[in-house]
Amino acid sequence: MNLGRAAERLGITEERLQGLQETLIKRSSWPEPRLLRFEKTASGIEAGTVIFENGEIVYGYQKIRRALMLGPAIKRHFSGIVAVEEKMNGHNVRVTSVDGSIIALTRGGFICPYSTEVAKRLLPEAIFEEQPDLVLCGEMVGPENPYVPKDIYPTDTIDFYLFDLSRKNCKSTLGVHRTHEFAREHGIKAAALLGEFRAENAYEPVTRMVRRLGRQGREGVVMKDPENRRPPMKYTSSESNCNDLRVAFRYYNDYALDFFLSRAVREGFQSLEWRESEEERRARAKRLGESILLPMVETIQKKQSGENIVQRVQIRVKSLQTAREFEYHLRRSGMKAIFDQPEPEDDGYLVRITRLIMSTNDKTQALLEGEMW
Amino acid sequence: MNLGRAAERLGITEERLQGLQETLIKRSSWPEPRLLRFEKTASGIEAGTVIFENGEIVYGYQKIRRALMLGPAIKRHFSGIVAVEEKMNGHNVRVTSVDGSIIALTRGGFICPYSTEVAKRLLPEAIFEEQPDLVLCGEMVGPENPYVPKDIYPTDTIDFYLFDLSRKNCKSTLGVHRTHEFAREHGIKAAALLGEFRAENAYEPVTRMVRRLGRQGREGVVMKDPENRRPPMKYTSSESNCNDLRVAFRYYNDYALDFFLSRAVREGFQSLEWRESEEERRARAKRLGESILLPMVETIQKKQSGENIVQRVQIRVKSLQTAREFEYHLRRSGMKAIFDQPEPEDDGYLVRITRLIMSTNDKTQALLEGEMW
Repeated sequence: MNLGRAAERLGITEERLQGLQETLIKRSSWPEPRLLRFEKTASGIEAGTVIFENGEIVYGYQKIRRALMLGPAIKRHFSGIVAVEEKMNGHNVRVTSVDGSIIALTRGGFICPYSTEVAKRLLPEAIFEEQPDLVLCGEMVGPENPYVPKDIYPTDTIDFYLFDLSRKNCKSTLGVHRTHEFAREHGIKAAALLGEFRAENAYEPVTRMVRRLGRQGREGVVMKDPENRRPPMKYTSSESNCNDLRVAFRYYNDYALDFFLSRAVREGFQSLEWRESEEERRARAKRLGESILLPMVETIQKKQSGENIVQRVQIRVKSLQTAREFEYHLRRSGMKAIFDQPEPEDDGYLVRITRLIMSTNDKTQALLEGEMW
Repeated sequence: MNLGRAAERLGITEERLQGLQETLIKRSSWPEPRLLRFEKTASGIEAGTVIFENGEIVYGYQKIRRALMLGPAIKRHFSGIVAVEEKMNGHNVRVTSVDGSIIALTRGGFICPYSTEVAKRLLPEAIFEEQPDLVLCGEMVGPENPYVPKDIYPTDTIDFYLFDLSRKNCKSTLGVHRTHEFAREHGIKAAALLGEFRAENAYEPVTRMVRRLGRQGREGVVMKDPENRRPPMKYTSSESNCNDLRVAFRYYNDYALDFFLSRAVREGFQSLEWRESEEERRARAKRLGESILLPMVETIQKKQSGENIVQRVQIRVKSLQTAREFEYHLRRSGMKAIFDQPEPEDDGYLVRITRLIMSTNDKTQALLEGEMW
């Protein structure tokens, strides 16, 4: 690998890059092509940034910060126009081609074999033949997203929604308008562009959108400066916060601690900002409480009746190779999962996957037997 | 200090004790008498254990573990008789006398000047004249407990409830019966002994007690083996769990994360074990949700209207010296507090204290101004 060239592109010295390689940069040699991943942000280079063996760089997708008081946050953060896009609820991938072959990178900079197969199926190959340095940033969503299965989108399997465009070796993105234009030109789905507003007037319409999205079980919005002068900002619906909590508390000993506080605090600020009546606020509290208590009790009941605490998901693949590789990919990401025998279907295979939620499973069993906390 | 003698009493080598002194054992030279504190449990010696300059040792009070599924936990943990005491909600102190003078040690092994003054006022001096090696373990409770102010006990100020007896240089305690006998003999209040049951029959009556205590806003119970063969075990009411959450979410950025998960999980197991109806379970969820959302919204509102997020408590002291010393004690414990000018009263002074809840205060302000999470 030509580290000198990569360092130059990254804007750091080769020595610095060498030094990072022993700490924050990890090597990944599978699946091909081999690459170096930034496991954490370093020297101003975003986590998830990848250096391929041929020296090409795909930068990590920026972490989007979250508003808690939407009105003041819009005013503080933006000036001029704010473009509002739907925030899709799935997993973030960057799709690009390396040496002529399409790959999908996870947030952390791994090549995900399943996402790669999906991207190859959904995206016209011509895109990368014409522009081999293009990076498509988007969300994989749907019921057959094995990370975040969701039934709320118009797909029975999994779909890709573009939300940003970038180029290899280039930190910046091409902006809202160019992204949506590109999606139209190439017949690719994109996260819905819900409107554009002057920053000082945006609070009311954005709030209406978030309420409506919430009623539909959707996640929320990402607000962007069409001229890319300011980084984007996100804001989510109460329903989405509570959905997250429901998942977190179903697997309370694995996820609840990370998830909980921030989501509860979001509810507090939203209730205040929306000037809820006593009655509305109590309804929100009830929703919040139920998202915590009910899934947790269900989990304990399940364990009490002898079932294991697992999460069942499924994927559909064209080749058995993808299924096998995805199994390996989950394992290296630290997930414990059992893959059923693939079931042949018209054009490929359905693979049911059982994710083991070990900590909650074992802890619940122990507590039910009278062990102490 | 005679370290050799202390080490012998602790059952460890002098070298080991020397070694710990540089890591887990801290020196405290104020207020008199000077002492060494075990900041963490080490070599089987409980955190909070104190070695005085004269070589006398007061062991740390054991951490009492908590049942989540009460029925199975009682059966698994106890055999024979279980004595049930009310768990008081305040702060744990160990009162003893060193070189003829009474002191109150906090859980962590500091001498608390305020608790010491209270102990001197409430406990007959004769106790320690007759038995200078006695250690009274108890809870300081009431509205003028500056750590955990509570209005639910029959005192307008602060009171001491004995719940265990021990001796200097001795790890074990004297047991439930001896403790209550001692309290009666010396006219000292003790945590109520609510009953004794055979382990296999204890679940039903203990549950009834916990429900009743809950309705009274009380915390819960501690179950003890009267023959001291097994360590005690605690179990708390839903009301107490929710009260804790209310405090935690009022100061959400300072306390909520530590507090939350364990309390939510307690609610889940209790709801299951009590075989609640759909309706009861939803009522519990509502209570849980309200304990989280409402105090948090109140805090944000308060800050929005320009108030600072603080906690106001008060103490009553006989001597101004105690107030000054308590101020220093809070500061060394890492608490930020402003002491008002003491107000003279019949027999001493009323001192109002404003505890600054810095992190919640500053974070709320920033978020209200539109800063992102």
